[in-house]
Amino acid sequence: MKTLHIVKIGGDIIDREHTLREFLSGFLKVEGPKILVHGGGKAASTLSERLGIQPRLVEGRRITDADTLKVITMVYAGLINKQLVAMLQNLGCASIGLSGADAALLPATRRSSAPVDYGFVGDIEPQDVNLPVLCSLIDAGLVPVICPVTYERGAGLLNTNADTVAAALAIALSACYTVNLNFCFGKKGILKDMEDENSVMEQLSEKEYLGFKKEGIVSKGMLPKLENAYRSLRNGVADVRIGQAADIELMIKKEKGAGTAITL
Amino acid sequence: MKTLHIVKIGGDIIDREHTLREFLSGFLKVEGPKILVHGGGKAASTLSERLGIQPRLVEGRRITDADTLKVITMVYAGLINKQLVAMLQNLGCASIGLSGADAALLPATRRSSAPVDYGFVGDIEPQDVNLPVLCSLIDAGLVPVICPVTYERGAGLLNTNADTVAAALAIALSACYTVNLNFCFGKKGILKDMEDENSVMEQLSEKEYLGFKKEGIVSKGMLPKLENAYRSLRNGVADVRIGQAADIELMIKKEKGAGTAITL
Repeated sequence: MKTLHIVKIGGDIIDREHTLREFLSGFLKVEGPKILVHGGGKAASTLSERLGIQPRLVEGRRITDADTLKVITMVYAGLINKQLVAMLQNLGCASIGLSGADAALLPATRRSSAPVDYGFVGDIEPQDVNLPVLCSLIDAGLVPVICPVTYERGAGLLNTNADTVAAALAIALSACYTVNLNFCFGKKGILKDMEDENSVMEQLSEKEYLGFKKEGIVSKGMLPKLENAYRSLRNGVADVRIGQAADIELMIKKEKGAGTAITL
Repeated sequence: MKTLHIVKIGGDIIDREHTLREFLSGFLKVEGPKILVHGGGKAASTLSERLGIQPRLVEGRRITDADTLKVITMVYAGLINKQLVAMLQNLGCASIGLSGADAALLPATRRSSAPVDYGFVGDIEPQDVNLPVLCSLIDAGLVPVICPVTYERGAGLLNTNADTVAAALAIALSACYTVNLNFCFGKKGILKDMEDENSVMEQLSEKEYLGFKKEGIVSKGMLPKLENAYRSLRNGVADVRIGQAADIELMIKKEKGAGTAITL
């Protein structure tokens, strides 16, 4: 099977123009079929603040109310998605920006309101991804640029975690490709010592991870990324790496020192 | 050649939920390949106001400065586009929302800054429309939902008049389809008497139009629509109609009294 590279970038990359440009020029050099999944960044919070939408948090997690969903749709599916597409086109990369509603790419299920009602938040299952449309776009030589605005059939738009979107896409596409999934963020990989930027783990097995998690060594923000990484590996994804956006080219070449290889 | 229906709806439709739903259920019944082009509506102005972006006008025309372009990208390509796609999916219509940047669908040229600098405003030529991608999406059974955010190669996003986008698409697609172009708005058609909603002209030839224009009978807001209509007819588009959104099904069936038929 052909190899497909899925790369997810978070808000910390999108918010820094130099870092983003550096990432995109690396992403451009990734050969073969590829998909870019992007999160949000500060623009959504900034816009919410400017509009006077008060963030509502439950147990430290933000609630997506109707107004917040509108902001997310505007910022993720509108501003960031189209700016990324335009930047890629300028680099000569034929890309197409999509939300999960487009061509019913990512049908989601609204999360149960019990025990906590997170609002317009959806979860997706890999088997629900619209593979035929996605594959035909890739076959046409286009690079899908996908934002985590999903869609519930019979209802409307939903907000989904971008790491979860990347993992669901990776698992679904493993049916037709050897999938290589890369989570890019600001750090060089998973750090052994949070205080030492150079203490990057070369690899992290699930067993080690569970031990670190128990000891509280892994930072809270990394948990969804890592849970999605192991879920992907258990469901057919060939390779998962977590590393620095600027290193994307090296990560894909599986060069030593470029990110942390996640293993079962 | 197969017939393709292109329908453009303006902000006055998008802003009224009942009218929009009525339109969409009519649009759903339009058989065969079709494209929906949408404009903006009040949401962009409302968001600009809430963000304290002062509208800058020159000779009564709004300037698209960098902040306004961001608002337009958020509202047109994000909020309205994705909401329309979700509404269509809910009705069972497989649709895909696109801006002109996506798959370089609508490459535009930034308008000259002389005599008036309108800012990030672009003009598109039918020959620049990315026909292969558009046709392959249509062939895949998808209904493209297109917003008038275009893209200048080597530069970035631009704002383009939605009537012009619809006309450029219609002219370009006339190479592979018999194209039927419909401009939908709140009135039943072109009125002989602006004070009488029922004084709809059955048809309006270019000669008559030029006469009316000279006499100042045609309202200013109709001029871009009509100029685009005649331009389309002169360049291969088979049929152009202007009428009420609620009448879309009848307009497409060319029923008497449903909109004004524009003729050369």
